[in-house]
Amino acid sequence: AGSPTWLLLLGHTLQRTPGVRTVPGCVLSSGPSSLSFRSHTCGELRPEHVGEVVTVCGWLLILIYSSVFQSAGDLKAALCDLTAESVVKVTGTVRRRPAGQENKRMPTGEIEVHAESVEVFSVCRKLPFEIKDFVKKSESLRMQYRYLDLRSSQMQNNLRLRSQMVMKMREYLCNVHGFVDVETPTLFKRTPGGAKEFLVPSREPGRFYSLPQSPQQFKQLLMVAGIDRYFQVARCYRDEGSKPDRQPEFTQVDIEMSFVDQTGIMSLVEGLLQYSWPAEKGPIKVPFQTMTYEEAMRDYGVDKPDTRFSMKLIDLREVFLSTEIQFLRTALNQPGGSVQAICVPSGAKLFTGKELENLKQTAKTQFGQRSLLGSVRLQCAELLGSHGFPFRDLSAFQFLWVVDFPLFLPKEDELEQLESAHHPFTAPVPEDTPLLYTDPHKVRGQHYDLVLNGCEIGGGSIRIHKASEQLYVLENILKEDPSLLSHLLEALDSGAPPHGGIALVTLFVLVSLVVCFFPLYISGH
Amino acid sequence: AGSPTWLLLLGHTLQRTPGVRTVPGCVLSSGPSSLSFRSHTCGELRPEHVGEVVTVCGWLLILIYSSVFQSAGDLKAALCDLTAESVVKVTGTVRRRPAGQENKRMPTGEIEVHAESVEVFSVCRKLPFEIKDFVKKSESLRMQYRYLDLRSSQMQNNLRLRSQMVMKMREYLCNVHGFVDVETPTLFKRTPGGAKEFLVPSREPGRFYSLPQSPQQFKQLLMVAGIDRYFQVARCYRDEGSKPDRQPEFTQVDIEMSFVDQTGIMSLVEGLLQYSWPAEKGPIKVPFQTMTYEEAMRDYGVDKPDTRFSMKLIDLREVFLSTEIQFLRTALNQPGGSVQAICVPSGAKLFTGKELENLKQTAKTQFGQRSLLGSVRLQCAELLGSHGFPFRDLSAFQFLWVVDFPLFLPKEDELEQLESAHHPFTAPVPEDTPLLYTDPHKVRGQHYDLVLNGCEIGGGSIRIHKASEQLYVLENILKEDPSLLSHLLEALDSGAPPHGGIALVTLFVLVSLVVCFFPLYISGH
Repeated sequence: AGSPTWLLLLGHTLQRTPGVRTVPGCVLSSGPSSLSFRSHTCGELRPEHVGEVVTVCGWLLILIYSSVFQSAGDLKAALCDLTAESVVKVTGTVRRRPAGQENKRMPTGEIEVHAESVEVFSVCRKLPFEIKDFVKKSESLRMQYRYLDLRSSQMQNNLRLRSQMVMKMREYLCNVHGFVDVETPTLFKRTPGGAKEFLVPSREPGRFYSLPQSPQQFKQLLMVAGIDRYFQVARCYRDEGSKPDRQPEFTQVDIEMSFVDQTGIMSLVEGLLQYSWPAEKGPIKVPFQTMTYEEAMRDYGVDKPDTRFSMKLIDLREVFLSTEIQFLRTALNQPGGSVQAICVPSGAKLFTGKELENLKQTAKTQFGQRSLLGSVRLQCAELLGSHGFPFRDLSAFQFLWVVDFPLFLPKEDELEQLESAHHPFTAPVPEDTPLLYTDPHKVRGQHYDLVLNGCEIGGGSIRIHKASEQLYVLENILKEDPSLLSHLLEALDSGAPPHGGIALVTLFVLVSLVVCFFPLYISGH
Repeated sequence: AGSPTWLLLLGHTLQRTPGVRTVPGCVLSSGPSSLSFRSHTCGELRPEHVGEVVTVCGWLLILIYSSVFQSAGDLKAALCDLTAESVVKVTGTVRRRPAGQENKRMPTGEIEVHAESVEVFSVCRKLPFEIKDFVKKSESLRMQYRYLDLRSSQMQNNLRLRSQMVMKMREYLCNVHGFVDVETPTLFKRTPGGAKEFLVPSREPGRFYSLPQSPQQFKQLLMVAGIDRYFQVARCYRDEGSKPDRQPEFTQVDIEMSFVDQTGIMSLVEGLLQYSWPAEKGPIKVPFQTMTYEEAMRDYGVDKPDTRFSMKLIDLREVFLSTEIQFLRTALNQPGGSVQAICVPSGAKLFTGKELENLKQTAKTQFGQRSLLGSVRLQCAELLGSHGFPFRDLSAFQFLWVVDFPLFLPKEDELEQLESAHHPFTAPVPEDTPLLYTDPHKVRGQHYDLVLNGCEIGGGSIRIHKASEQLYVLENILKEDPSLLSHLLEALDSGAPPHGGIALVTLFVLVSLVVCFFPLYISGH
């Protein structure tokens, strides 16, 4: 006892429990090793600790070679049987590594711990896969053994980054801007329209709760209740199957404010992202670029353009007005028909015949669909990228507001009838309000979408706060039964402040801050 | 224009949007009126603002008397029609109130705003009840019009206080102690045993998700995953009907740590409550008092004693060992039989005959139940209180840890068979571990309950982290089918660190931080 029996190469042999920032001036026991068996985390020891006796805990990364041991005995025998990923506690003295054995690429690479005692907490069985970042695992195996998958440095970083980013968002909303974090119920009554909802049988036979798609109605009621500034990191549910950026349950940063206009909400969100953005991703510039829906559709062919590159659509109607080419004449003579072009830099030189053929195929199969030109543009960008043409910075974060959406759109199956472009609570742009009663299809909504690199990451609006206006929209324009929303209409009639908000939904997916979802087991019942 | 047309008595005529703390040194637009139509909240104007032109928004508290207007015209007419709780924006100059008209009891009572312009955002209908703190409303009316109920200063304070307290808890856990906020799924598979769970039909006929009672299994898996320090403000579900401190959905502060013992978790929670405790409730002292389960049962007759007053149970067995009184002899001869007394100060003088009769009734109806003496003690305390006897400080917060619970208890309907006193994952007290295999009913668990003024506000334990021990408990002691928990056993075999945690459940109810739940409408489907 007392003489080192085991040499611990930190970062090589023991892992996880990374160091985190401690709060200076905190009088309580604090930091990542407070109240713990360990004195330090595996990742925080440095040359300045040389000579200190420390205790560290962690998972064994590699098997220990017996040559490392300087004395034999029971301890050595016990340790040699240990498998990788077994959990141990080690107490020993920090020493400088012998000359020539330093690893300059690791922050802990200049030191080692000479172990005086080792306690084995648990021995790990043979695992279904090795926990090394370079070992490729199938998606289904990762899901089955989620607790092993989460040990990878990538997943550890994701979860910690997400936690820190959400914490910064809370600080910004609560401490900087006076928001109130209010939890709203998830066992609610069914919302008319919208996505398919999960139903939950109640104790009363034949009667069901439903899991809400978003706290939209709750947050509007909270504004009527005088909460003034609400936010919630809210769990939402949609029974629509899974997509890469949508799961049956997902989380959104949900915000609502009273006495505010569109500019106010947009500034708030810009500040929110700037404040919470991870330092290692580089700063983001505010204000974000703003584009109208009309401009987005005209220049990019979609309402969520990827503005990391130009390649805008060019309208050639004027050029071809008196063309003799028959299929162009036909197109131009159709209602809404147009002839447009995309100039692909070096496309002629780089694209192969097969690639051009694929582009034509896309054009044929999606012909007549609104988003065709948008997809062709993105397809060209992908192709240029695959040829190594440097025209788009893949590490850039290009935020974009898209505004001035139409408030109503013709129903797909019944073109005479209008439906809400987003939801029936969106207020019209003030100068368009008179058009509600004469030309509702011309009304623009006070809706704003936040787009990042071509993905919609959030959306919101200023809401209608006058009961009479909300009733007119429901009854006369949307031809819906207003009694389904009578509780909201009644609330708007009870002293409703002007209000608006936003929900940020897919942000966490985009910056790889994947929500940790264990497999959603289903059991028969 | 320019001359004041309306006199605004702040705090008298316009309300809500209270001032909140702003963050000094923040370069962004900040504070409770950032990005808003208003320049100030209704509650934050003071004599130092005299001379400033300000804009405030809010709900009309009282009808405006026409005498207040200094000039007539359209504006006056419009304003005279306004109902209470209508929403307006007022711009005007802050002035000192005329001598003799100050209200020293209000922070805004020395000033008034001479309005130059008023905008009416919405006119309030006749409400189902007046929104004044002194107007008593029925519970069902409050629930039906929750958005009006929440306008009361009491509910506004509750929601804001809860938000601030949870924010402080997050700061303590994330920033001070390096915890990671991880969201766990709420659509999960059914947990064997435990409370009745809500079921959610999946898209596959005959197969169901269930809404979890707590993230217990998830958080243990996260420890196996190397997350080290987890917390979540977690939504939980129990299909057990509503109780005053339990709702079908409720929120708990859920915590789990690796490489920690019972003392570590208890210190963490003491620090957490001290750090987040509302300043206006006065500081709380740590460490909290600790009592064993045996002491609690012996001295107070319950496992969650109210320690704001003494009145301990006194065992009189020795005194009556040779008594001739037949019913006492019978009691003492029964297994577990005892004779105990409570000394009620001034009870003989204060208690009426009817009250004594009620106490006897309690003793008769609950005879033979373990908690009888505990309830009689509380009933005596209530009675003393109703007689105005000052023996208990109702504004005090007496925190208490109860520890050393038995790990297993005999099943009610089958006394030979043991069941978990709390849940099957609790680890035995280290020195009792050998008893697991010989005298399991003697084993104490590393479980700790946190009690506040006689209410259990949370509970937790150090968990079993060895698969073999967990398997033995499930199979040999509890006689349960271990295959139902095979995923957990497999995880414990994959390198599990020692770990433990706690869940704080009813804290928010106790300090009047009622969770805001709108009525849970049920719709047929």
